[in-house]
Amino acid sequence: MLKLYYAPRTCALASLIALEDANAEYETVRLSFHTNDQRKPEYLKINPKARVPALAAEEGILTETPAILAFIAQLYPQARLAPLGDPFAFARVQAFNSYLCSTVHIAHAHRMRGYRWADDPAAIVAMQRKVPVSVGECFDLIEHEMLKGPWVMGNGYSICDPYLFTLAQWLEADGIDVSRVPKVQEHRQRMSQRPAVRKAIAEETSQPDEKHLA
Amino acid sequence: MLKLYYAPRTCALASLIALEDANAEYETVRLSFHTNDQRKPEYLKINPKARVPALAAEEGILTETPAILAFIAQLYPQARLAPLGDPFAFARVQAFNSYLCSTVHIAHAHRMRGYRWADDPAAIVAMQRKVPVSVGECFDLIEHEMLKGPWVMGNGYSICDPYLFTLAQWLEADGIDVSRVPKVQEHRQRMSQRPAVRKAIAEETSQPDEKHLA
Repeated sequence: MLKLYYAPRTCALASLIALEDANAEYETVRLSFHTNDQRKPEYLKINPKARVPALAAEEGILTETPAILAFIAQLYPQARLAPLGDPFAFARVQAFNSYLCSTVHIAHAHRMRGYRWADDPAAIVAMQRKVPVSVGECFDLIEHEMLKGPWVMGNGYSICDPYLFTLAQWLEADGIDVSRVPKVQEHRQRMSQRPAVRKAIAEETSQPDEKHLA
Repeated sequence: MLKLYYAPRTCALASLIALEDANAEYETVRLSFHTNDQRKPEYLKINPKARVPALAAEEGILTETPAILAFIAQLYPQARLAPLGDPFAFARVQAFNSYLCSTVHIAHAHRMRGYRWADDPAAIVAMQRKVPVSVGECFDLIEHEMLKGPWVMGNGYSICDPYLFTLAQWLEADGIDVSRVPKVQEHRQRMSQRPAVRKAIAEETSQPDEKHLA
Protein backbone atom coordinates (compact mmCIF):
# COMPACT_ATOMS: atom_id res chain seq x y z
CA MET A 1 0.00 0.00 0.00
CA LEU A 2 1.17 3.55 -0.68
CA LYS A 3 2.32 5.58 2.30
CA LEU A 4 2.49 9.37 2.17
CA TYR A 5 4.82 11.24 4.51
CA TYR A 6 3.52 14.77 4.89
CA ALA A 7 3.45 17.77 7.19
CA PRO A 8 0.38 19.97 7.62
CA ARG A 9 0.18 23.23 5.71
CA THR A 10 2.92 22.28 3.25
CA CYS A 11 2.87 21.50 -0.46
CA ALA A 12 2.31 17.85 0.51
CA LEU A 13 -1.41 18.70 0.59
CA ALA A 14 -1.42 18.47 -3.23
CA SER A 15 -0.36 14.82 -3.13
CA LEU A 16 -2.85 14.06 -0.36
CA ILE A 17 -5.69 15.51 -2.47
CA ALA A 18 -4.52 13.62 -5.58
CA LEU A 19 -4.49 10.33 -3.64
CA GLU A 20 -8.08 11.07 -2.61
CA ASP A 21 -8.98 12.06 -6.19
CA ALA A 22 -7.58 8.73 -7.38
CA ASN A 23 -9.47 6.83 -4.72
CA ALA A 24 -6.13 5.24 -3.85
CA GLU A 25 -5.57 2.93 -0.92
CA TYR A 26 -2.94 4.66 1.14
CA GLU A 27 -1.84 5.44 4.63
CA THR A 28 -0.22 8.57 5.97
CA VAL A 29 2.58 9.47 8.31
CA ARG A 30 2.42 13.00 9.64
CA LEU A 31 5.58 14.92 10.41
CA SER A 32 5.70 18.08 12.46
CA PHE A 33 7.98 20.86 11.26
CA HIS A 34 7.68 22.40 14.75
CA THR A 35 9.65 19.49 16.19
CA ASN A 36 11.85 19.25 13.09
CA ASP A 37 10.73 15.71 12.34
CA GLN A 38 11.98 16.13 8.79
CA ARG A 39 15.57 16.27 10.08
CA LYS A 40 15.35 13.22 12.35
CA PRO A 41 17.55 10.26 11.37
CA GLU A 42 14.56 7.95 10.81
CA TYR A 43 13.10 10.35 8.26
CA LEU A 44 16.41 11.15 6.58
CA LYS A 45 16.60 7.43 5.74
CA ILE A 46 13.34 7.90 3.83
CA ASN A 47 14.15 11.28 2.30
CA PRO A 48 17.71 12.56 2.71
CA LYS A 49 16.55 15.93 1.40
CA ALA A 50 14.69 16.49 4.71
CA ARG A 51 11.58 17.68 2.91
CA VAL A 52 8.01 16.58 2.42
CA PRO A 53 6.21 15.01 0.69
CA ALA A 54 7.68 11.54 0.28
CA LEU A 55 5.62 8.69 -1.10
CA ALA A 56 6.61 5.14 -0.26
CA ALA A 57 5.49 2.77 -3.00
CA GLU A 58 6.14 -0.95 -3.34
CA GLU A 59 9.19 -0.26 -5.50
CA GLY A 60 10.73 2.43 -3.26
CA ILE A 61 10.48 6.05 -2.24
CA LEU A 62 9.43 8.94 -4.44
CA THR A 63 9.93 12.63 -3.70
CA GLU A 64 9.15 15.94 -5.43
CA THR A 65 5.52 16.97 -5.84
CA PRO A 66 5.41 17.10 -9.68
CA ALA A 67 6.84 13.57 -9.89
CA ILE A 68 4.49 12.20 -7.21
CA LEU A 69 1.44 13.80 -8.85
CA ALA A 70 2.28 12.38 -12.29
CA PHE A 71 2.95 8.98 -10.69
CA ILE A 72 -0.48 8.98 -9.03
CA ALA A 73 -2.09 9.93 -12.36
CA GLN A 74 -0.27 7.09 -14.15
CA LEU A 75 -0.90 4.53 -11.42
CA TYR A 76 -4.65 5.22 -11.39
CA PRO A 77 -5.49 5.92 -15.05
CA GLN A 78 -9.20 5.36 -14.42
CA ALA A 79 -9.22 8.54 -12.30
CA ARG A 80 -8.29 10.56 -15.40
CA LEU A 81 -6.03 12.95 -13.52
CA ALA A 82 -3.80 13.66 -16.55
CA PRO A 83 -4.08 13.31 -20.35
CA LEU A 84 -1.86 10.22 -20.36
CA GLY A 85 -2.32 9.27 -24.00
CA ASP A 86 -1.33 12.66 -25.38
CA PRO A 87 2.35 13.59 -24.91
CA PHE A 88 1.83 17.28 -25.67
CA ALA A 89 -1.19 17.68 -23.36
CA PHE A 90 0.66 15.72 -20.65
CA ALA A 91 3.67 18.00 -21.10
CA ARG A 92 1.44 21.06 -20.63
CA VAL A 93 0.26 19.60 -17.32
CA GLN A 94 3.86 18.95 -16.35
CA ALA A 95 4.97 22.44 -17.39
CA PHE A 96 2.32 24.01 -15.18
CA ASN A 97 3.29 21.87 -12.20
CA SER A 98 6.98 22.52 -12.79
CA TYR A 99 6.30 26.26 -12.78
CA LEU A 100 4.46 25.94 -9.47
CA CYS A 101 7.33 23.93 -8.01
CA SER A 102 10.34 25.86 -9.25
CA THR A 103 9.04 29.43 -9.47
CA VAL A 104 5.86 29.97 -7.43
CA HIS A 105 6.71 27.81 -4.41
CA ILE A 106 10.28 29.17 -4.46
CA ALA A 107 9.08 32.79 -4.46
CA HIS A 108 6.85 31.95 -1.49
CA ALA A 109 9.64 30.10 0.32
CA HIS A 110 11.64 33.31 0.59
CA ARG A 111 9.20 34.43 3.30
CA MET A 112 9.93 31.62 5.75
CA ARG A 113 13.03 29.81 4.50
CA GLY A 114 15.35 32.60 3.44
CA TYR A 115 18.14 30.93 5.44
CA ARG A 116 18.46 28.48 2.55
CA TRP A 117 19.94 31.21 0.36
CA ALA A 118 21.59 33.73 2.72
CA ASP A 119 22.97 33.85 6.26
CA ASP A 120 22.77 37.60 6.92
CA PRO A 121 19.61 38.41 8.97
CA ALA A 122 19.14 41.70 7.08
CA ALA A 123 19.18 39.80 3.78
CA ILE A 124 16.56 37.41 5.10
CA VAL A 125 14.35 40.38 6.00
CA ALA A 126 14.95 41.88 2.54
CA MET A 127 13.78 38.61 0.98
CA GLN A 128 10.63 38.59 3.10
CA ARG A 129 9.89 42.13 1.95
CA LYS A 130 9.86 41.13 -1.71
CA VAL A 131 7.53 38.12 -1.35
CA PRO A 132 4.30 40.07 -2.03
CA VAL A 133 5.85 41.31 -5.29
CA SER A 134 7.43 38.07 -6.50
CA VAL A 135 4.54 35.78 -5.53
CA GLY A 136 2.08 38.41 -6.81
CA GLU A 137 3.76 38.43 -10.24
CA CYS A 138 3.56 34.64 -10.41
CA PHE A 139 -0.15 34.66 -9.62
CA ASP A 140 -0.79 37.46 -12.13
CA LEU A 141 0.72 35.21 -14.78
CA ILE A 142 -1.38 32.25 -13.61
CA GLU A 143 -4.50 34.44 -13.59
CA HIS A 144 -3.98 35.97 -17.04
CA GLU A 145 -2.04 33.36 -19.01
CA MET A 146 -2.38 29.91 -17.50
CA LEU A 147 -5.60 29.16 -15.62
CA LYS A 148 -8.10 28.36 -18.36
CA GLY A 149 -11.10 27.62 -16.14
CA PRO A 150 -13.07 26.07 -14.71
CA TRP A 151 -9.98 23.92 -14.08
CA VAL A 152 -6.36 24.81 -14.77
CA MET A 153 -6.30 22.92 -18.07
CA GLY A 154 -9.85 23.88 -19.05
CA ASN A 155 -12.77 21.50 -18.79
CA GLY A 156 -10.71 18.56 -17.60
CA TYR A 157 -9.73 18.37 -13.93
CA SER A 158 -6.08 17.30 -13.57
CA ILE A 159 -3.14 17.03 -11.17
CA CYS A 160 -2.57 20.75 -11.79
CA ASP A 161 -5.67 21.59 -9.76
CA PRO A 162 -4.75 20.25 -6.31
CA TYR A 163 -1.27 21.74 -6.69
CA LEU A 164 -2.54 25.22 -7.60
CA PHE A 165 -5.11 25.01 -4.80
CA THR A 166 -2.36 24.12 -2.31
CA LEU A 167 -0.09 27.04 -3.19
CA ALA A 168 -3.04 29.44 -3.45
CA GLN A 169 -3.80 28.69 0.23
CA TRP A 170 -0.81 30.85 1.09
CA LEU A 171 -1.76 34.00 -0.84
CA GLU A 172 -3.10 36.03 2.08
CA ALA A 173 -0.14 35.20 4.31
CA ASP A 174 2.18 36.15 1.45
CA GLY A 175 0.61 39.62 1.47
CA ILE A 176 -1.47 39.38 -1.69
CA ASP A 177 -4.94 40.84 -2.00
CA VAL A 178 -6.81 37.93 -3.55
CA SER A 179 -9.31 40.25 -5.25
CA ARG A 180 -6.45 40.88 -7.70
CA VAL A 181 -6.71 37.27 -8.95
CA PRO A 182 -10.46 36.52 -9.21
CA LYS A 183 -10.06 33.39 -11.36
CA VAL A 184 -7.61 31.92 -8.85
CA GLN A 185 -10.00 32.78 -6.04
CA GLU A 186 -12.93 31.10 -7.84
CA HIS A 187 -10.75 28.07 -8.49
CA ARG A 188 -9.91 27.89 -4.80
CA GLN A 189 -13.60 28.00 -3.88
CA ARG A 190 -14.48 25.40 -6.50
CA MET A 191 -11.74 23.12 -5.20
CA SER A 192 -12.70 23.54 -1.56
CA GLN A 193 -16.13 22.08 -2.29
CA ARG A 194 -14.76 18.81 -3.63
CA PRO A 195 -15.07 15.84 -1.27
CA ALA A 196 -11.44 14.83 -1.96
CA VAL A 197 -10.20 18.23 -0.83
CA ARG A 198 -12.37 18.16 2.30
CA LYS A 199 -11.08 14.71 3.18
CA ALA A 200 -7.45 15.74 2.66
CA ILE A 201 -7.85 18.80 4.85
CA ALA A 202 -9.65 16.74 7.50
CA GLU A 203 -6.66 14.38 7.48
CA GLU A 204 -4.26 17.30 7.97
CA THR A 205 -6.24 18.66 10.89
CA SER A 206 -7.09 15.33 12.57
CA GLN A 207 -5.70 14.41 15.97
CA PRO A 208 -1.95 14.36 15.57
CA ASP A 209 -1.08 11.63 18.05
CA GLU A 210 -2.24 8.68 16.01
CA LYS A 211 -0.43 9.71 12.87
CA HIS A 212 2.85 11.09 14.07
CA LEU A 213 6.24 9.92 12.83
CA ALA A 214 7.30 7.21 15.28
CA MET B 1 9.01 20.62 -37.05
CA LEU B 2 10.03 21.33 -33.47
CA LYS B 3 11.65 24.68 -32.80
CA LEU B 4 13.74 25.28 -29.68
CA TYR B 5 14.20 28.80 -28.34
CA TYR B 6 17.35 28.87 -26.26
CA ALA B 7 20.12 31.08 -25.00
CA PRO B 8 23.74 29.95 -24.72
CA ARG B 9 25.04 28.83 -21.34
CA THR B 10 21.57 28.39 -19.85
CA CYS B 11 19.64 25.32 -18.74
CA ALA B 12 18.25 25.16 -22.29
CA LEU B 13 21.36 23.14 -23.18
CA ALA B 14 19.67 20.10 -21.58
CA SER B 15 16.80 20.24 -24.08
CA LEU B 16 19.20 20.81 -26.97
CA ILE B 17 21.16 17.69 -26.00
CA ALA B 18 17.98 15.65 -25.58
CA LEU B 19 16.78 16.67 -29.06
CA GLU B 20 20.13 15.46 -30.41
CA ASP B 21 19.89 12.26 -28.35
CA ALA B 22 16.45 11.64 -29.82
CA ASN B 23 17.72 12.31 -33.33
CA ALA B 24 14.81 14.73 -33.63
CA GLU B 25 14.23 17.01 -36.59
CA TYR B 26 14.29 20.48 -35.10
CA GLU B 27 15.41 24.00 -35.68
CA THR B 28 16.69 26.52 -33.17
CA VAL B 29 16.23 30.17 -32.40
CA ARG B 30 18.98 31.68 -30.31
CA LEU B 31 18.25 34.47 -27.86
CA SER B 32 20.90 36.64 -26.29
CA PHE B 33 20.49 37.48 -22.62
CA HIS B 34 23.02 40.29 -23.15
CA THR B 35 20.53 42.16 -25.30
CA ASN B 36 17.58 40.99 -23.16
CA ASP B 37 15.93 39.19 -26.07
CA GLN B 38 13.87 37.21 -23.57
CA ARG B 39 12.00 40.38 -22.59
CA LYS B 40 11.26 41.56 -26.12
CA PRO B 41 7.58 41.64 -27.14
CA GLU B 42 8.04 39.06 -29.91
CA TYR B 43 9.45 36.55 -27.43
CA LEU B 44 6.95 37.33 -24.67
CA LYS B 45 4.26 36.19 -27.12
CA ILE B 46 6.02 32.82 -27.21
CA ASN B 47 6.87 32.63 -23.52
CA PRO B 48 5.32 35.28 -21.25
CA LYS B 49 7.61 34.05 -18.45
CA ALA B 50 10.56 35.64 -20.30
CA ARG B 51 12.69 32.56 -19.78
CA VAL B 52 14.32 29.87 -21.87
CA PRO B 53 13.92 27.19 -23.04
CA ALA B 54 10.67 27.20 -24.97
CA LEU B 55 9.84 24.46 -27.42
CA ALA B 56 7.38 25.16 -30.22
CA ALA B 57 5.64 21.96 -31.26
CA GLU B 58 2.82 21.50 -33.77
CA GLU B 59 0.26 21.73 -30.98
CA GLY B 60 1.69 24.83 -29.30
CA ILE B 61 4.44 26.06 -27.01
CA LEU B 62 6.01 24.14 -24.13
CA THR B 63 8.15 25.59 -21.37
CA GLU B 64 9.95 24.26 -18.27
CA THR B 65 12.91 21.94 -18.74
CA PRO B 66 11.51 18.88 -16.90
CA ALA B 67 8.33 19.01 -19.01
CA ILE B 68 10.22 19.51 -22.28
CA LEU B 69 12.62 16.65 -21.50
CA ALA B 70 9.80 14.22 -20.68
CA PHE B 71 7.96 15.35 -23.83
CA ILE B 72 11.01 14.62 -26.00
CA ALA B 73 11.34 11.18 -24.36
CA GLN B 74 7.66 10.41 -25.03
CA LEU B 75 7.68 11.80 -28.57
CA TYR B 76 10.69 9.69 -29.55
CA PRO B 77 10.21 6.41 -27.65
CA GLN B 78 12.70 4.61 -29.89
CA ALA B 79 15.48 6.76 -28.39
CA ARG B 80 14.78 5.18 -24.97
CA LEU B 81 15.41 8.38 -23.04
CA ALA B 82 13.06 7.44 -20.18
CA PRO B 83 11.49 4.24 -18.80
CA LEU B 84 8.11 5.06 -20.34
CA GLY B 85 6.41 1.78 -19.59
CA ASP B 86 7.17 1.79 -15.88
CA PRO B 87 5.35 4.51 -13.88
CA PHE B 88 7.61 4.17 -10.83
CA ALA B 89 10.88 4.26 -12.79
CA PHE B 90 9.53 7.18 -14.85
CA ALA B 91 8.63 8.98 -11.61
CA ARG B 92 12.19 8.50 -10.33
CA VAL B 93 13.47 10.18 -13.49
CA GLN B 94 10.98 12.99 -13.00
CA ALA B 95 11.87 13.37 -9.31
CA PHE B 96 15.54 13.77 -10.17
CA ASN B 97 14.81 16.38 -12.84
CA SER B 98 12.38 18.20 -10.56
CA TYR B 99 15.10 18.39 -7.89
CA LEU B 100 17.53 19.85 -10.43
CA CYS B 101 14.94 22.41 -11.51
CA SER B 102 13.49 23.52 -8.20
CA THR B 103 16.44 23.13 -5.81
CA VAL B 104 19.79 22.92 -7.63
CA HIS B 105 19.15 25.46 -10.38
CA ILE B 106 17.46 27.77 -7.84
CA ALA B 107 20.45 27.61 -5.48
CA HIS B 108 22.69 28.49 -8.43
CA ALA B 109 20.39 31.31 -9.60
CA HIS B 110 21.04 33.22 -6.37
CA ARG B 111 24.49 34.07 -7.75
CA MET B 112 23.30 35.98 -10.80
CA ARG B 113 19.57 36.56 -10.38
CA GLY B 114 19.19 37.56 -6.75
CA TYR B 115 17.08 40.53 -7.88
CA ARG B 116 14.24 38.09 -8.33
CA TRP B 117 13.94 37.66 -4.57
CA ALA B 118 15.25 40.89 -3.00
CA ASP B 119 15.82 44.52 -3.98
CA ASP B 120 18.46 45.50 -1.42
CA PRO B 121 21.95 45.36 -3.02
CA ALA B 122 23.48 44.10 0.25
CA ALA B 123 20.98 41.25 0.32
CA ILE B 124 21.89 40.33 -3.24
CA VAL B 125 25.56 40.18 -2.23
CA ALA B 126 24.63 38.05 0.80
CA MET B 127 22.86 35.62 -1.52
CA GLN B 128 25.89 35.40 -3.80
CA ARG B 129 28.05 34.61 -0.77
CA LYS B 130 25.99 31.55 0.12
CA VAL B 131 25.94 29.97 -3.36
CA PRO B 132 29.06 27.81 -2.83
CA VAL B 133 27.42 26.36 0.30
CA SER B 134 23.90 25.85 -1.05
CA VAL B 135 24.93 24.53 -4.47
CA GLY B 136 27.68 22.48 -2.80
CA GLU B 137 25.13 20.77 -0.53
CA CYS B 138 22.94 19.93 -3.52
CA PHE B 139 25.84 18.34 -5.36
CA ASP B 140 26.94 16.43 -2.25
CA LEU B 141 23.48 14.88 -2.18
CA ILE B 142 23.65 14.09 -5.90
CA GLU B 143 27.12 12.58 -5.45
CA HIS B 144 26.27 10.43 -2.45
CA GLU B 145 22.57 9.62 -2.79
CA MET B 146 21.35 10.06 -6.34
CA LEU B 147 23.90 9.51 -9.11
CA LYS B 148 24.05 5.74 -9.49
CA GLY B 149 26.61 5.58 -12.30
CA PRO B 150 27.61 5.31 -15.00
CA TRP B 151 24.44 7.30 -15.74
CA VAL B 152 22.19 9.05 -13.26
CA MET B 153 19.68 6.20 -13.18
CA GLY B 154 22.32 3.46 -13.41
CA ASN B 155 23.02 1.55 -16.59
CA GLY B 156 20.34 3.26 -18.62
CA TYR B 157 21.02 6.70 -20.09
CA SER B 158 18.01 8.99 -19.61
CA ILE B 159 16.79 12.59 -19.75
CA CYS B 160 18.36 13.02 -16.29
CA ASP B 161 21.83 12.91 -17.82
CA PRO B 162 21.79 15.96 -20.11
CA TYR B 163 20.12 17.98 -17.34
CA LEU B 164 22.70 17.04 -14.71
CA PHE B 165 25.49 17.69 -17.21
CA THR B 166 24.08 21.14 -17.94
CA LEU B 167 23.89 22.25 -14.32
CA ALA B 168 27.26 20.66 -13.49
CA GLN B 169 28.83 22.97 -16.11
CA TRP B 170 28.39 25.79 -13.61
CA LEU B 171 30.13 24.20 -10.62
CA GLU B 172 33.45 26.02 -10.91
CA ALA B 173 31.82 29.41 -11.40
CA ASP B 174 29.62 28.68 -8.39
CA GLY B 175 32.77 28.30 -6.29
CA ILE B 176 32.79 24.54 -5.85
CA ASP B 177 35.93 22.47 -5.96
CA VAL B 178 34.86 19.66 -8.29
CA SER B 179 37.28 17.21 -6.70
CA ARG B 180 34.69 17.08 -3.92
CA VAL B 181 32.22 15.36 -6.27
CA PRO B 182 34.27 12.82 -8.27
CA LYS B 183 31.26 10.87 -9.56
CA VAL B 184 29.70 14.07 -10.90
CA GLN B 185 33.00 14.98 -12.50
CA GLU B 186 33.31 11.56 -14.16
CA HIS B 187 29.73 11.87 -15.37
CA ARG B 188 30.54 15.24 -16.88
CA GLN B 189 33.53 13.80 -18.73
CA ARG B 190 31.52 10.79 -19.93
CA MET B 191 28.80 13.11 -21.21
CA SER B 192 31.20 15.46 -22.96
CA GLN B 193 32.39 12.60 -25.16
CA ARG B 194 28.95 11.86 -26.57
CA PRO B 195 28.37 13.08 -30.12
CA ALA B 196 24.96 14.53 -29.13
CA VAL B 197 26.59 16.70 -26.47
CA ARG B 198 29.32 17.86 -28.84
CA LYS B 199 26.73 18.78 -31.44
CA ALA B 200 24.61 20.69 -28.93
CA ILE B 201 27.61 22.66 -27.69
CA ALA B 202 28.70 23.37 -31.27
CA GLU B 203 25.21 24.77 -31.92
CA GLU B 204 25.49 27.02 -28.86
CA THR B 205 28.88 28.37 -29.95
CA SER B 206 28.17 28.67 -33.69
CA GLN B 207 28.07 32.03 -35.45
CA PRO B 208 25.28 33.97 -33.77
CA ASP B 209 24.08 36.00 -36.74
CA GLU B 210 22.29 33.23 -38.58
CA LYS B 211 20.37 32.01 -35.58
CA HIS B 212 19.39 35.11 -33.71
CA LEU B 213 15.82 35.98 -32.69
CA ALA B 214 14.49 38.11 -35.53
